[in-house]
Amino acid sequence: MNKIDNPKPDTWSEILKRPTKTIDDIEVTVKEIFKEVQKKGDEAVAKYTSIFDGITLENYEVTPAEIEEAINSISDELKSSIQLAKANILKFHTAQKTDRISVETIEGVNCWQEKRPIQKIGLYIPGGTAPLFSTVLMLAVPAEIAGCKEIVLCSPPDKTGKINPAILYTAHLCGVTKILKVGGIQAIAGMTFGTQSIPKVYKIFGPGNQFVTVAKQLATQFGVAIDMPAGPSELLIVADDTAVPAFVASDLLSQAEHGTDSQVILVSTSIRLIEAVEAEIQSQIEELPRKEIAKKAIENSKLIYIENDQIALDLINEYGPEHFIICSEFDDFYCNGIVNAGSVFIGNYTPESAGDYASGTNHTLPTNGYAKNYSGVNLDSFMKSMTFQKISKTGIQNIGRAIEVMAEAEGLQAHKNAVTLRLKSIE
Amino acid sequence: MNKIDNPKPDTWSEILKRPTKTIDDIEVTVKEIFKEVQKKGDEAVAKYTSIFDGITLENYEVTPAEIEEAINSISDELKSSIQLAKANILKFHTAQKTDRISVETIEGVNCWQEKRPIQKIGLYIPGGTAPLFSTVLMLAVPAEIAGCKEIVLCSPPDKTGKINPAILYTAHLCGVTKILKVGGIQAIAGMTFGTQSIPKVYKIFGPGNQFVTVAKQLATQFGVAIDMPAGPSELLIVADDTAVPAFVASDLLSQAEHGTDSQVILVSTSIRLIEAVEAEIQSQIEELPRKEIAKKAIENSKLIYIENDQIALDLINEYGPEHFIICSEFDDFYCNGIVNAGSVFIGNYTPESAGDYASGTNHTLPTNGYAKNYSGVNLDSFMKSMTFQKISKTGIQNIGRAIEVMAEAEGLQAHKNAVTLRLKSIE
Repeated sequence: MNKIDNPKPDTWSEILKRPTKTIDDIEVTVKEIFKEVQKKGDEAVAKYTSIFDGITLENYEVTPAEIEEAINSISDELKSSIQLAKANILKFHTAQKTDRISVETIEGVNCWQEKRPIQKIGLYIPGGTAPLFSTVLMLAVPAEIAGCKEIVLCSPPDKTGKINPAILYTAHLCGVTKILKVGGIQAIAGMTFGTQSIPKVYKIFGPGNQFVTVAKQLATQFGVAIDMPAGPSELLIVADDTAVPAFVASDLLSQAEHGTDSQVILVSTSIRLIEAVEAEIQSQIEELPRKEIAKKAIENSKLIYIENDQIALDLINEYGPEHFIICSEFDDFYCNGIVNAGSVFIGNYTPESAGDYASGTNHTLPTNGYAKNYSGVNLDSFMKSMTFQKISKTGIQNIGRAIEVMAEAEGLQAHKNAVTLRLKSIE
Repeated sequence: MNKIDNPKPDTWSEILKRPTKTIDDIEVTVKEIFKEVQKKGDEAVAKYTSIFDGITLENYEVTPAEIEEAINSISDELKSSIQLAKANILKFHTAQKTDRISVETIEGVNCWQEKRPIQKIGLYIPGGTAPLFSTVLMLAVPAEIAGCKEIVLCSPPDKTGKINPAILYTAHLCGVTKILKVGGIQAIAGMTFGTQSIPKVYKIFGPGNQFVTVAKQLATQFGVAIDMPAGPSELLIVADDTAVPAFVASDLLSQAEHGTDSQVILVSTSIRLIEAVEAEIQSQIEELPRKEIAKKAIENSKLIYIENDQIALDLINEYGPEHFIICSEFDDFYCNGIVNAGSVFIGNYTPESAGDYASGTNHTLPTNGYAKNYSGVNLDSFMKSMTFQKISKTGIQNIGRAIEVMAEAEGLQAHKNAVTLRLKSIE
């Protein structure tokens, strides 16, 4: 742990620097696989599934029988936990629905804005040791509320050709329309171009390793939208003497276990609290199954003492954390003042885990400082905002002259003419 | 003009194909300039301003005296036209403000969503023959409503080192905080990295030539967000015998004058209407100052006869036009059924020009089929959606067990532990 005492603002950017990765090597591989999938479709998907997942599959689509088997194989307790989480996520995201916004901007000129669902979306769910069925909830639930017609899910098969049953159960529960046993770059390429087995989609959501991250970036060059650029997960906690050190330590550790590159930061106006948290981390970390990962992340973590809350807030806004926990006497001050954060957790009984799983908020959030310019995933991520307008004769008379003058000043005579013709017809 | 009679759905994608461009050559140039601006700042900006704009400037920032001069140099009629447009844009975008959305998802678990402004944004306004002061309105007005703190505008200087006075007047009217005489790749690179003269921003908006387009794409690799990927402007009109052929022709031509690569499409269930529009285009086009450009675009335009409105709607949704004009007896049918379009114009007195300038809707819209997955620019484009949660002891007792079970199933013990510690403390 790196303890930093009252750093001067001109050192903040250095202290808060995130690790950067070179992706040039990966990019070449990703581009090659994209080219091959674009050209050869399923044949290329089969080739890379064999190379990366070590298996040859007859069919990529998960069958109803496999889903049935998955449903039967997981415990009732896990099922009811997933259902409770789903209910909360459904409630919070349903509340995000917006009505048509309609304005008569000037007499006879009616403008309105409406949201329409993105028709075809793709969800990518990584395989491996941690089966992220919680991410299925976070993506499929709002997609269904939005009214997306096709919800395709791709996840890599294990060595026996299966997808984790909790992922299948959750996907089935949340209205995913097609589940495919395809992972990695070939899955993203497949959803970008479409193959015999994989439908082409308009927007791709979901986490993944650096290959998947680069593949999603590349997909945007072929007209596919993505949820947001990705980076290692982050947590920043601001805490004072009203915080419970054991709780703070447990939250920092839950971030640290994600990966060795996880960003873990504590900001405090209390040296006593910093020291108590440090001691708690040392004792709690030994009990963790993923302690090797957590230890590496904690080594790079930062415990920053700051002399007052205003300076602390400025520093936090400069960082723009993905997750931001506030355990402070002045929680309102931080809540009102925070402008750059993905999701904010307030008080001693609000661990990040709550938002990761079951409180109802979304856990797909901007990392890497992207909280400065990107929203976390929310209902609108699955919709597009469209505008409409209907102008009456009176309306065009009210704004026609202004349009003519402006179009002429921009040198666009045909734009002007479209109005002039109409105005003349009314005279 | 290409007349197409009742095309079979399996030919649609070929018929509706947009021209694709290779950007590989441009990419190398853009990357080089980015590297140089990142390394050398203003020195590199000066170099490329000299090369591309043919001028050496002492200072890039527009001075209050220059703004004063611009205000005095433009006509009162243009000023009042811009003010009328501004008022309508202000009204429509202010109506898009959203309140905090707050939900108690389960007893003791309070979740809410709020939007906060992106703090620093950059607007790019091209120079050249058509001074797009209307785009300044479309970007600066919602940015100011959103509450963006820094609104930087970059536009290339002309050979005398000036920016068009209408652009300066509009920028000043709409609360732009800094106006810089920098254009092209060096402007986008400058706003991406920051230089001595150009502030670094979090999101870049605005149109531009293919160099600017590629530069904006590259900016996203350095953590900067952009409004949307760009392509040539497009208009699709669906019209039947209730349409006025002269109006339809004038709208198609106003699209055609934008550039030789403009996409101009008419879809109709009436052969008579198609023929009448064709004749109107031939006669109107001769009067246009930009007729050489318009003629080339019209050469590539498509007049498509479709036997009924349902098939027409399907085809239009497959295309996903940036601008979509409906002059049809069945306008409600099209309004309700359209899912992929940037902005929709309804009826004989609603030319695209209205939305381009003064009705109140935004004219920065998704082209190139991006209407399938991107919103046009709107108030939310200048904000980020953040979530907040506050959980009470009762709340964590209500969802704690579900979190423990899910975290365990995902193999994330520290996530579970953060909840277990809290639950135990309450017992």
